[in-house]
Amino acid sequence: MNEKKWVYLFNEVEKAEASVGGKWDDVRALLGGKGAGLADMTRAGVPVPPGFTVTTEACNAYLAEGGKFPAGMWEQELAALKVVEQLTGKKFGDPSNPLLVSCRSGAKFSMPGMMDTVLNIGMNDATAASMAKLTRDERFVYDAYRRLVEMFGSVVLDIPDEAFEHPLAAYKEKKGYKIDTEMTAEDWKAVTRTFQKVVKEEAGFDFPQDPYEQLRLATEAVFKSWNGKRAVDYRNAAGIAHDLGTAVNIVTMVFGNMGSNSGTGVAFTRDPATGEHKLYGDYLINAQGEDVVAGIRNTEKIENMANDLPQSYAEFVEITKKLEKHYREMQDVEFTIERGKLWMLQTRTGKRTAKAEVKVAVDMVNEGLITKEEALKRVTPEQVDTLLHPQFDPKAKDQAKKAGKMYAKGVNASPGAAVGRIYFDADTAEKMAKEDKQDVIMVRPFTKPDDVHGMLAAKGILTSEGGATSHAAVVARQFGVPCVVGASEIRIDLEARVMAANGQVINEGEWISVDGTSGEVFIGQIPTSAPSLEEQTDLLTLLKWADEFCATPGIRVAQEGWPNKGLQVWANADYPADARRARAYGAVGIGLCRTEHMFFEPVRLPIVQRMILAKTSAERTTALNELLPYQRADFEGLFEAMNGYPVIIRLIDPPLHEFMQSEETLLEEVITMRIKGETAGLEAKESLLNSIRAMHESNPMLGLRGVRLSIYMPEIVEMQVRAIFEAAANQTLNGVVVKPEVMIPLTGTVKELNWIQPRLERIAKAVMEEKKVTFDYKFGTMIEIPRAAITAGEIAEVAEFFSFGTNDLTQMTFGYSRDDAERNFLIKYVEEGILPKNPFQTLDIDGVGRLMKMAVDEGRQTRTSLEVGICGEHGGDPASIEFCHLVGNNYVSCSPFRVPVARLAAAHAALKYKGGKKSDYEVDK
Amino acid sequence: MNEKKWVYLFNEVEKAEASVGGKWDDVRALLGGKGAGLADMTRAGVPVPPGFTVTTEACNAYLAEGGKFPAGMWEQELAALKVVEQLTGKKFGDPSNPLLVSCRSGAKFSMPGMMDTVLNIGMNDATAASMAKLTRDERFVYDAYRRLVEMFGSVVLDIPDEAFEHPLAAYKEKKGYKIDTEMTAEDWKAVTRTFQKVVKEEAGFDFPQDPYEQLRLATEAVFKSWNGKRAVDYRNAAGIAHDLGTAVNIVTMVFGNMGSNSGTGVAFTRDPATGEHKLYGDYLINAQGEDVVAGIRNTEKIENMANDLPQSYAEFVEITKKLEKHYREMQDVEFTIERGKLWMLQTRTGKRTAKAEVKVAVDMVNEGLITKEEALKRVTPEQVDTLLHPQFDPKAKDQAKKAGKMYAKGVNASPGAAVGRIYFDADTAEKMAKEDKQDVIMVRPFTKPDDVHGMLAAKGILTSEGGATSHAAVVARQFGVPCVVGASEIRIDLEARVMAANGQVINEGEWISVDGTSGEVFIGQIPTSAPSLEEQTDLLTLLKWADEFCATPGIRVAQEGWPNKGLQVWANADYPADARRARAYGAVGIGLCRTEHMFFEPVRLPIVQRMILAKTSAERTTALNELLPYQRADFEGLFEAMNGYPVIIRLIDPPLHEFMQSEETLLEEVITMRIKGETAGLEAKESLLNSIRAMHESNPMLGLRGVRLSIYMPEIVEMQVRAIFEAAANQTLNGVVVKPEVMIPLTGTVKELNWIQPRLERIAKAVMEEKKVTFDYKFGTMIEIPRAAITAGEIAEVAEFFSFGTNDLTQMTFGYSRDDAERNFLIKYVEEGILPKNPFQTLDIDGVGRLMKMAVDEGRQTRTSLEVGICGEHGGDPASIEFCHLVGNNYVSCSPFRVPVARLAAAHAALKYKGGKKSDYEVDK
Repeated sequence: MNEKKWVYLFNEVEKAEASVGGKWDDVRALLGGKGAGLADMTRAGVPVPPGFTVTTEACNAYLAEGGKFPAGMWEQELAALKVVEQLTGKKFGDPSNPLLVSCRSGAKFSMPGMMDTVLNIGMNDATAASMAKLTRDERFVYDAYRRLVEMFGSVVLDIPDEAFEHPLAAYKEKKGYKIDTEMTAEDWKAVTRTFQKVVKEEAGFDFPQDPYEQLRLATEAVFKSWNGKRAVDYRNAAGIAHDLGTAVNIVTMVFGNMGSNSGTGVAFTRDPATGEHKLYGDYLINAQGEDVVAGIRNTEKIENMANDLPQSYAEFVEITKKLEKHYREMQDVEFTIERGKLWMLQTRTGKRTAKAEVKVAVDMVNEGLITKEEALKRVTPEQVDTLLHPQFDPKAKDQAKKAGKMYAKGVNASPGAAVGRIYFDADTAEKMAKEDKQDVIMVRPFTKPDDVHGMLAAKGILTSEGGATSHAAVVARQFGVPCVVGASEIRIDLEARVMAANGQVINEGEWISVDGTSGEVFIGQIPTSAPSLEEQTDLLTLLKWADEFCATPGIRVAQEGWPNKGLQVWANADYPADARRARAYGAVGIGLCRTEHMFFEPVRLPIVQRMILAKTSAERTTALNELLPYQRADFEGLFEAMNGYPVIIRLIDPPLHEFMQSEETLLEEVITMRIKGETAGLEAKESLLNSIRAMHESNPMLGLRGVRLSIYMPEIVEMQVRAIFEAAANQTLNGVVVKPEVMIPLTGTVKELNWIQPRLERIAKAVMEEKKVTFDYKFGTMIEIPRAAITAGEIAEVAEFFSFGTNDLTQMTFGYSRDDAERNFLIKYVEEGILPKNPFQTLDIDGVGRLMKMAVDEGRQTRTSLEVGICGEHGGDPASIEFCHLVGNNYVSCSPFRVPVARLAAAHAALKYKGGKKSDYEVDK
Repeated sequence: MNEKKWVYLFNEVEKAEASVGGKWDDVRALLGGKGAGLADMTRAGVPVPPGFTVTTEACNAYLAEGGKFPAGMWEQELAALKVVEQLTGKKFGDPSNPLLVSCRSGAKFSMPGMMDTVLNIGMNDATAASMAKLTRDERFVYDAYRRLVEMFGSVVLDIPDEAFEHPLAAYKEKKGYKIDTEMTAEDWKAVTRTFQKVVKEEAGFDFPQDPYEQLRLATEAVFKSWNGKRAVDYRNAAGIAHDLGTAVNIVTMVFGNMGSNSGTGVAFTRDPATGEHKLYGDYLINAQGEDVVAGIRNTEKIENMANDLPQSYAEFVEITKKLEKHYREMQDVEFTIERGKLWMLQTRTGKRTAKAEVKVAVDMVNEGLITKEEALKRVTPEQVDTLLHPQFDPKAKDQAKKAGKMYAKGVNASPGAAVGRIYFDADTAEKMAKEDKQDVIMVRPFTKPDDVHGMLAAKGILTSEGGATSHAAVVARQFGVPCVVGASEIRIDLEARVMAANGQVINEGEWISVDGTSGEVFIGQIPTSAPSLEEQTDLLTLLKWADEFCATPGIRVAQEGWPNKGLQVWANADYPADARRARAYGAVGIGLCRTEHMFFEPVRLPIVQRMILAKTSAERTTALNELLPYQRADFEGLFEAMNGYPVIIRLIDPPLHEFMQSEETLLEEVITMRIKGETAGLEAKESLLNSIRAMHESNPMLGLRGVRLSIYMPEIVEMQVRAIFEAAANQTLNGVVVKPEVMIPLTGTVKELNWIQPRLERIAKAVMEEKKVTFDYKFGTMIEIPRAAITAGEIAEVAEFFSFGTNDLTQMTFGYSRDDAERNFLIKYVEEGILPKNPFQTLDIDGVGRLMKMAVDEGRQTRTSLEVGICGEHGGDPASIEFCHLVGNNYVSCSPFRVPVARLAAAHAALKYKGGKKSDYEVDK
């Protein structure tokens, strides 16, 4: 029987693979992550400093035998060292040409900082003296030597760090030094001697001058460290098995400060900011790696190395190509040139900006390095989101924080960066933006529908109340305006026209910067950068690939069988301009047009109020007849913009009092008039106040709205349906392909649909007869009341499509009022871990999700062809989109600005579950 | 082969049974309901006028053969008639002693008014003349004869009614008669001749003088009427099969106006008002049945018949006993004595008051006539409810309606009748009731917690807003005060101290009568009657039997297997007095003690407000320490009252702003002070206004309350738990057996319980250690948020009991605000059939019920011993109680006044599903 192999040289990776049966994961288990990585780089033809790995099996055997190297291990280690001596041309312990090595632990899974490193093993008094002559750099040598003594003392001999730190500090104080660079060669020499004394005193024996003794003890220390308290605690916390053991990596030390043919540097294989395919990095001639990082000397751009060290540079370029090919990823590398010889010390995946991420992924597909699938998986939806909004320069933001310019923090309601002067009401905000051409941030305690004109004119929005689905947040996302809501530290004084937070007062007209991506608010102006989607050709390419992995646009069929065939991405759009933007961003349908937003336009609102206050049906009809042409025109624009694609129009949803003047303002007016004895117009105001009071509801969220309002007062929706079908008919005659879908909100029982839907369908048919055209249309419903989800099987008997209104469904399933909860307890709930995330931002799968799954399953049982979508805020959230894929939605609908994000998220979901089994998708127990 | 039997004499019921295999239901199918009933009475030995039934099979055969009597049928009919002649000693068509018969249809199921009757068949010119001599009552004879001609003409010959009515009217007008009783013998004789002419003219042939021809045509007419339009429509509407056919009943006519040894009467076998076991009815000597009903002559009490017709009376008494024994029910009978011979014309179950229903049921058990089970099934929970509240005298109410005293109608929120003077605020109401000893009806647009003292002082409550679960309704039911809410016709002017509805104004201090059972409001005083439970010994007996069919009190175990072992009835009680009443009414536990009600008491409210407005934790603790002794004393009283029974105490539930002054009132004050320039105290008021505004929530129902408030501000519930356990410990030391259960409201995720429950349990344990006592206790939760029901499996890991808060669960499952919905759209929804019932009164089984079933099933999967109850308003509703039985609740908890109702409803549910299979109980698909 051959002796067991305990030690693998870096160039023996094939042997290691063979011994474990070929699986890379098992190689990593045997050699540890770091050892396997070094061996892999070696195999890729990259010049890694020679070295070897003592296996995790050796560690386990050592620990099992109570602290004894297994038979043959030490001999194999010595033999490997001999090979390293041959490869390097140096000799371990030979003062004339000493081989120095490092000793590092390396388990299968990275356990950062758990076990320490010992560098410069092989040095002793003799080699140090000799090296000082050879390098003519005594300071460097004794700095290295004192490091060895210190690391060996603390890591191998368990001497507390303070035992070394205190004498060094005392020495520097005596000399009046502030930093280590002030230390001279003599100083380090003296410190080395001091450290040797510390070892003697603490350990009871001299620092070992025998390099082999150093190596043996270091190897043993790594083995022992596996069961150190810190490592055990970490494994318990991280869920890593305790029987894996750690490997020991012995690597030749290389030095870049060995003269003008030496050097060191760091580089990215592509530009980490832009993704451009060219080397990007810095280097220094005759320097150690830490000199590059410390910034003591000015570094050179990596491409200049072609002049300084042409041969090494050429080799380096080749190596980086090799590494990218091997790892199929952009790399972040560290290298050292020791006397003309290039050594690669480390390579890892390079961190990069979102922009670079997209470019690198697309380029690598074009270069044949990776597949489209891989490219899609590498880019996250959040990165795409970043690319669509102006962003603050991260460095400038950091500086602002350091300078104390951070003002408040709220809910990151709509992403992007905005800089502007603050104004405290919609009219002023609009005026300043339009007439004075100012950049405006509109600041309000909270916003209401009649603030929208100011919000649209603003660069950004800030509120002190409300949460992620408050009016301000929803509107801001809808229109892509950066927005922070619920910044509760801020106190707004609307009369004094100032706001204050933490003692700092900002007056109307002064500048702030609002980061809707992070929720932060700053005093003053922070620079931003603003890309546009059309310019981002790489992103457009990537999104086109994303669509390939989802359903073909235009085909809307029930998802049959598993896995889900993929989601379409539709958009929520109320106006033709929104619809055009949504289509440009890749939406293939409108999932939600909120007709009531049209009611709030200044010219229309008085008509709407007249309609609401009408005392007779005739008065009401007159007002509605005035509104009809407006609505019809809106719908004609929508159909035209979405030519060929479905457009879901939701009938009026909010309670009527939302269209009226605020009760409080009116009350104040009435009281004032009464006290002052003003009688002119008082009666009319009192009468209006009474009407508005009669509309008051304790919980308007659960009140007279949606289909309830339609049944209570059918005239409004009858007008709306007529407007929809007249618009569709007119556009059909214009050659537009229309696909109207009429959506009834807030359904709780199928009987509501039984009552209203036939009335509305009669109007639809009547209009088609009047206009003598036909086109396809659907009638369907929102599923936003828990009871609708619970009785979806019945509701699908009448509804031809479902659209999950997950904002309201979340409110009612949790019993949270979205206007209040985020301001009150929701933030605490997330902080305390009572909720994993804000359920208004990311779908609550266990609760709301379970209702959705019931609804889809039972709805499709009744009607196989049932079209299912989502139009709540969650329609743009990647985790929620994945869930929609799982339950078998046909589409998700989100704000136009989220469409690109959703397209990628939909592709991710499709790829993640590609070829999966139905059982993978089970949501409930 | 024997000829098929088409005709059964009334005394051939055994033959009929034998022919169909013995099942009574099949006998009813063969002979029709009426025929079977007459045969059954005959078998019971009751003297029914002789007669026979032509079967439904004969009818079907006749119709199948296109209108031909099946072979042998007519011959059998003639043979049966011969037997009848023998039994009566009369002869069909014999002028000297004529047998007259009636011909009536009778299908398996009663189809009231669908097919008409022909009386007096057998009369012709000859028999009429002869009968006139024999009876010496020519007027009676010709009245009878003209009836035959008229009925025969319209029913058999299809002559329109007007053809007879017009000439009769013309005759009376000519004679100057107003009513039929003015008609003389000669008059009827003349009319008979006129009617015969009408027949001749309309039918084209003479009215048949041959009695056999009359009988044949009448029989055929009944057969044909089965397929008449009116009958077909009725069957379609009532869901009765069209192939059943109708039977034909031929019955001897008997006459009570044949002299002083003849008579007629109606009677109940027991007193229908009281249930007393004695005959109750009226009779007349020498009279026809219609004379008794018409009230022309003064009737005699039935017991006087013992003097007038002693032999007949004795026979009658015997027969009624026989009938009760046979039908095992109180009977309502009609009889006629013809020349000393008693005939029973009809017997049916007697209608009676709720009081009589209970007494009869209990007496019949004691008499051995029926079982306890049957007694329980006969009494409805609604009847029990009636017995517990004062009621208006029905006649007086009818008179009030006729007199135009009906004022308005609202939601019947709390049953019972109340009469009092109206007062428009709680303070005045209380003052008038306490100081002036007036009977008070408190009238408000709606009520709030600080109105409770007025509500308690009032005899009745009336509101113009709110629904069946509004504050007014809940409190009224809780305290058994009759209440009508949401009477939206009423306009209340609080300043002018008047209310107006439909133009009628009522001033403060004037009388009204409020019917909480029907929802009606009357002007003025209507007399009431008011029983007490203690006096109603029969009801107490019945309820004791009801308990026998439910689980044994005191044993609270999980329901294992099916069928459900039965429900306990617990009560919702906030104060010791409530608990004592609940216990007296038979509650075996407190399912809900609302601790916040205790906070509203005048002496405590200022402390509570101080606690809420506290700026520091220390201030808050000081206030809470003041509240602790109050709460502890309340709980001590509760535990004492419920000695040995469980008491569930719910921790604070409502949002804090409910304890504060109304924002609107305060705003009005502040605005007024500002405008008037009053500065004294303005700042304090403004500061208070700001504090209250900061607490404002858009939808308080979905806001910061329940467990959310406990996590936000744990000090309050920590105080409450300390108070609960100190009280329990003190009472244990006093020898009381305490079973406290701490209920956490509004849980939506198990993590809320994970956060709060251990904190509270530590306090519980600490108190037990301090006091050195131990006792059993539980911690559990309300299930009132949809998400709680959906994730009940997880919640049961921490909660030891569930209590369904179906008020809130209904609100959130439907998305209905209970404060608004009933006022707005709910009434319309019920009227339009969109909802079968108000879901706040009767549980919505398809929606809310499905969530409940999920919660029970999945909760018990996690924790087999999980205790499950309901404490919402539905806990007192019979249909909802049945559902709670089905899903496997351990108990229902309702207001003390509903406990007797619930006990009976629980027994009904247990009896209904006794011995059922699990599949009977499946709620969802």
